[in-house]
Amino acid sequence: MGGVVVQKIERAAAEVVDGLGAAGVATVHEAQGRKGLLASYIRPIYAGARIAGSAVTISSPPGDNWMVHVAIEQLQSGDILVLSPTSPCEDGYFGDLLATSAMARNCRGLVIDAGVRDVRDLKEMGFPVWSKAVFAQGTVKNTIGSVNVPVVCAGAHIEPGDVIVADDDGVCVVKRAEAAEVLAKASEREAKEEEKRQRLRAGELGLDIYEMRPRLAAMGLKYL
Amino acid sequence: MGGVVVQKIERAAAEVVDGLGAAGVATVHEAQGRKGLLASYIRPIYAGARIAGSAVTISSPPGDNWMVHVAIEQLQSGDILVLSPTSPCEDGYFGDLLATSAMARNCRGLVIDAGVRDVRDLKEMGFPVWSKAVFAQGTVKNTIGSVNVPVVCAGAHIEPGDVIVADDDGVCVVKRAEAAEVLAKASEREAKEEEKRQRLRAGELGLDIYEMRPRLAAMGLKYL
Amino acid sequence: MGGVVVQKIERAAAEVVDGLGAAGVATVHEAQGRKGLLASYIRPIYAGARIAGSAVTISSPPGDNWMVHVAIEQLQSGDILVLSPTSPCEDGYFGDLLATSAMARNCRGLVIDAGVRDVRDLKEMGFPVWSKAVFAQGTVKNTIGSVNVPVVCAGAHIEPGDVIVADDDGVCVVKRAEAAEVLAKASEREAKEEEKRQRLRAGELGLDIYEMRPRLAAMGLKYL
Amino acid sequence: MGGVVVQKIERAAAEVVDGLGAAGVATVHEAQGRKGLLASYIRPIYAGARIAGSAVTISSPPGDNWMVHVAIEQLQSGDILVLSPTSPCEDGYFGDLLATSAMARNCRGLVIDAGVRDVRDLKEMGFPVWSKAVFAQGTVKNTIGSVNVPVVCAGAHIEPGDVIVADDDGVCVVKRAEAAEVLAKASEREAKEEEKRQRLRAGELGLDIYEMRPRLAAMGLKYL
Amino acid sequence: MGGVVVQKIERAAAEVVDGLGAAGVATVHEAQGRKGLLASYIRPIYAGARIAGSAVTISSPPGDNWMVHVAIEQLQSGDILVLSPTSPCEDGYFGDLLATSAMARNCRGLVIDAGVRDVRDLKEMGFPVWSKAVFAQGTVKNTIGSVNVPVVCAGAHIEPGDVIVADDDGVCVVKRAEAAEVLAKASEREAKEEEKRQRLRAGELGLDIYEMRPRLAAMGLKYL
Amino acid sequence: MGGVVVQKIERAAAEVVDGLGAAGVATVHEAQGRKGLLASYIRPIYAGARIAGSAVTISSPPGDNWMVHVAIEQLQSGDILVLSPTSPCEDGYFGDLLATSAMARNCRGLVIDAGVRDVRDLKEMGFPVWSKAVFAQGTVKNTIGSVNVPVVCAGAHIEPGDVIVADDDGVCVVKRAEAAEVLAKASEREAKEEEKRQRLRAGELGLDIYEMRPRLAAMGLKYL
Repeated sequence: MGGVVVQKIERAAAEVVDGLGAAGVATVHEAQGRKGLLASYIRPIYAGARIAGSAVTISSPPGDNWMVHVAIEQLQSGDILVLSPTSPCEDGYFGDLLATSAMARNCRGLVIDAGVRDVRDLKEMGFPVWSKAVFAQGTVKNTIGSVNVPVVCAGAHIEPGDVIVADDDGVCVVKRAEAAEVLAKASEREAKEEEKRQRLRAGELGLDIYEMRPRLAAMGLKYL
Repeated sequence: MGGVVVQKIERAAAEVVDGLGAAGVATVHEAQGRKGLLASYIRPIYAGARIAGSAVTISSPPGDNWMVHVAIEQLQSGDILVLSPTSPCEDGYFGDLLATSAMARNCRGLVIDAGVRDVRDLKEMGFPVWSKAVFAQGTVKNTIGSVNVPVVCAGAHIEPGDVIVADDDGVCVVKRAEAAEVLAKASEREAKEEEKRQRLRAGELGLDIYEMRPRLAAMGLKYL
Repeated sequence: MGGVVVQKIERAAAEVVDGLGAAGVATVHEAQGRKGLLASYIRPIYAGARIAGSAVTISSPPGDNWMVHVAIEQLQSGDILVLSPTSPCEDGYFGDLLATSAMARNCRGLVIDAGVRDVRDLKEMGFPVWSKAVFAQGTVKNTIGSVNVPVVCAGAHIEPGDVIVADDDGVCVVKRAEAAEVLAKASEREAKEEEKRQRLRAGELGLDIYEMRPRLAAMGLKYL
Repeated sequence: MGGVVVQKIERAAAEVVDGLGAAGVATVHEAQGRKGLLASYIRPIYAGARIAGSAVTISSPPGDNWMVHVAIEQLQSGDILVLSPTSPCEDGYFGDLLATSAMARNCRGLVIDAGVRDVRDLKEMGFPVWSKAVFAQGTVKNTIGSVNVPVVCAGAHIEPGDVIVADDDGVCVVKRAEAAEVLAKASEREAKEEEKRQRLRAGELGLDIYEMRPRLAAMGLKYL
Repeated sequence: MGGVVVQKIERAAAEVVDGLGAAGVATVHEAQGRKGLLASYIRPIYAGARIAGSAVTISSPPGDNWMVHVAIEQLQSGDILVLSPTSPCEDGYFGDLLATSAMARNCRGLVIDAGVRDVRDLKEMGFPVWSKAVFAQGTVKNTIGSVNVPVVCAGAHIEPGDVIVADDDGVCVVKRAEAAEVLAKASEREAKEEEKRQRLRAGELGLDIYEMRPRLAAMGLKYL
Repeated sequence: MGGVVVQKIERAAAEVVDGLGAAGVATVHEAQGRKGLLASYIRPIYAGARIAGSAVTISSPPGDNWMVHVAIEQLQSGDILVLSPTSPCEDGYFGDLLATSAMARNCRGLVIDAGVRDVRDLKEMGFPVWSKAVFAQGTVKNTIGSVNVPVVCAGAHIEPGDVIVADDDGVCVVKRAEAAEVLAKASEREAKEEEKRQRLRAGELGLDIYEMRPRLAAMGLKYL
């Protein structure tokens, strides 16, 4: 069961990635047909971060962070590390030293279906992490895994080079090949939403803006 | 299984509602005989908010937020939306557009036994939410539910017009008919607590203030 | 099943305790051979606190906080309260009045495998708590427990006088008799880490610094 | 916060209760418009039991089973005990001695949002229990609660005298006043289902029996 | 966001599927390099079933079981239904009527990352289900999904036609293209295990059979 | 962080161990003052087993079962294996081969705060296991741990040679030095319970047998 490191992966265009990051998780998720969300237990270690980047994926044994070192070498500027253990684990795979190393490669953050530690340092360094747990439990470096292979992370299927979007709402993955189209739809959606926002702020009701009243009546809704 | 919208509900007096909000969850919960707390998994999406208001309740199918639009029309100034899905769900029923609409009606916040999204925007807008999850998962508008019917929300029985109190400690419901009496007891309690606080700060022990020593001895407590 | 209060416990030297606090949870946990961590569900009620102190332990019945009053009398300056219920419970055993009393004795904080309330007040008072839940549920004073007996708290065995270290990463316990040695190892570790941090920041890879490449190759890792 | 024991409660007619029991949880739940289900974490301690009865409710402090003794005196033949603690608890409130006492009153079983013990004995005695946990943790008799007051049990609002239906699918509550009507609808539903069952067994598809094809096409379902 | 139904999928050879079923989950999981396991929360509704079959996958909205009817039409003899909701849900999507329909097509069972009901009937009918929950909560038929598209089910990526193996240990998926090879390795593994079993039964130690002693000593294990 | 194997441990007398097993978990837990219970998430893999034995403890890294082989060599007839991972883990550390080996040494069962697999085989072999999960996930043999050191297992502190009692109610640990005394108290308790059982079966109420009425009245209980 030896591991592999795929060294050459495709990435989406930088401006597409950045555009998706600016749109944010909820909009991107909607724009791509409501798919790609990671489970809600993946939470940011601090509020306010909003990033997008290309996934460099890590498949690791439980409690073994050896592959993180291997993955860091594969990082290009603007990438995001995505780690999924091969069985459920909440050990602290990642802390300030690894973050220092990843930041030296302009890595934008980490998404991990496990634990993280040194969270105060990470916040001060401005290295955002979305994780399953904050836990100081140390890991070993005894068993190999793989880098840049497809993984299932917190319920989402992620391939290396897919675009990861993460903010206070959680994390969403966009397939690399669909990234440009999703960005276009997200922009369209944002434009439409702005117009709705104005009308709602002015006191118009969604019931009227979206013309829901006849359909609700047809469904049998009764006003008492 | 058609739904209903109850348009006319009774509310507690505004000054009673506001007084309960100022007292806060822990005090109100104690003042009414330790009942009415929602389960501890209901957490605020940001720290520091402290509100009270009259409940406009929503009973929604899982993953369907149609009734939120219907409920917003029923809001009066100072109300709080309370949403309980008919089976467990953590989808993101509510985001910044709905918050914009609710704020246009001077809604004070949302309590939801499900998920919420756009939490960064909600925080910036100052619209507080207490929820089971933060999750961007979109919902549909295909099945009707009811507005202003009794619901069980996070383990608490809530009737429309009941007073909802929410702060960093969680959420508590006060029956509308008991609200004034509970406020009186809460004020009394606060007065007593202030005196105790002074004595404790000065170094007196609860063991002495509350005269616990004889009863502890009678129970068999041994000092070694 | 009467309870006991052990009045005389040994404590580690103040400078050792403070040194461990400065080192922080992750470093101390590593320095003592990766043991002593409390479960990851124990979380701080607010970010940024970093403390160490000697454990005054409380074994309490579920939903009964009587022993907290008893324990406060046993506090010495620099101590930390550690409460473990005798069966799982998330009631709010502790709030601002008890914190006022504990602070009058220079108690540094509370670690509790149950709930806490008045968290906004506690934050304002600067009294840090690491807990399983934030929950306003009141407790009674009807059944006795014990103070300063060994407890298992969130999966860790803690004896009175053991050193508790707590920060944003969670909570770790150091056996009193090993505290000085653990501090020495923690300091050593920090020194080594600083050198590594410099090299990683400069762009050197962990793969090279820790000479991992030959061992990875021997394990069968393949670069594609 | 003294407790009360309501001694006189209304019950549904015996044949209605028994009819609902024979229909089972899933059918009854559907027949009453999909309401009244207790949360799915309430599970039977052994498979195969199928009961219905009138609820004698118990509101108990966490970890205190005193009120069970009080409630047993209120049992009439065919009743079911329903216990909800006032805050979350999984202690073992009930074992073989209490079951012996309850069976002496022809109690049909227990539904408890907490723990139970002596489960091997209970199975041998044929006393079915639906609980949140199996846990031997002992309880005390120090704090009073109430008997035959409305409770929220595992997310469902239950009033004394409501009909409890329980089988391997879980537990459902039927309001006393609606019990006869629900039984009528359940019987109707069962009759219809039997006809559907025959056709499905013979290989007809639900798509055709329920005439779903046109509506699916209208919704945009595409066959590739 | 219209759904699709893929009508033509490839399946592994029947004897390969049956061979994998006979080998069982633990052996198959090992034979394919320890991948493909579904999360441990997926449990059989009754003990003793042991099946394998080709996956007919269903991607369903939460609380909406319309697509199950659509999927049943796509079943061939020996298939297994695999249902994954698009957001977390434990509603009872499936009961005895749907099982009757599926059995009429010689479907071997259901794997569902949600709830199931009528479990007593399903057991009597001999229709095995592996689910996240037993829950009678009814579902609607208002929103479409897809059939025979790739899904992530309980953390595992499953494509239509992949081989599903399920027994009391849980559920494992084998990629269709690898099924024959995995079966070969599983058979090999079983042969080797039998020889080890004999030696272990006779009292030989794994320490000796697997020659672990020197390596343990090299790792620093000390016998006191 | 090398591991140790303590080869010589004290055990309680065989007749004491067997007596505790006959008394069962609930009785033993009560007899020793309501302590020593493992958390309720530890459940038997099949119903009906009832054992007691001396603990041979294993402290293992997450996902690494190497130490189980080491521990088996330390087993004496009548022992029970107790495994606690050093961080939370639900991997399948143990299956039919290890059970075969343990049974060759007359081991009575396994208590594990992690996962187990081959549960159908284990049931057929009559080797009972109490575990946190049933999960086929394989483990490695790369990192050492310790055997016969104190561990915290599912919240209980267990020392090698302590008596483990396990049945359908869960698992309880009795300190070796207290075992004889606990057995005496358990026998006493059983005798008393039998008398109570007779009276309760005859219809006497606990309210009268335990003379609860006056105390309930004094506490303020009101009959309506």
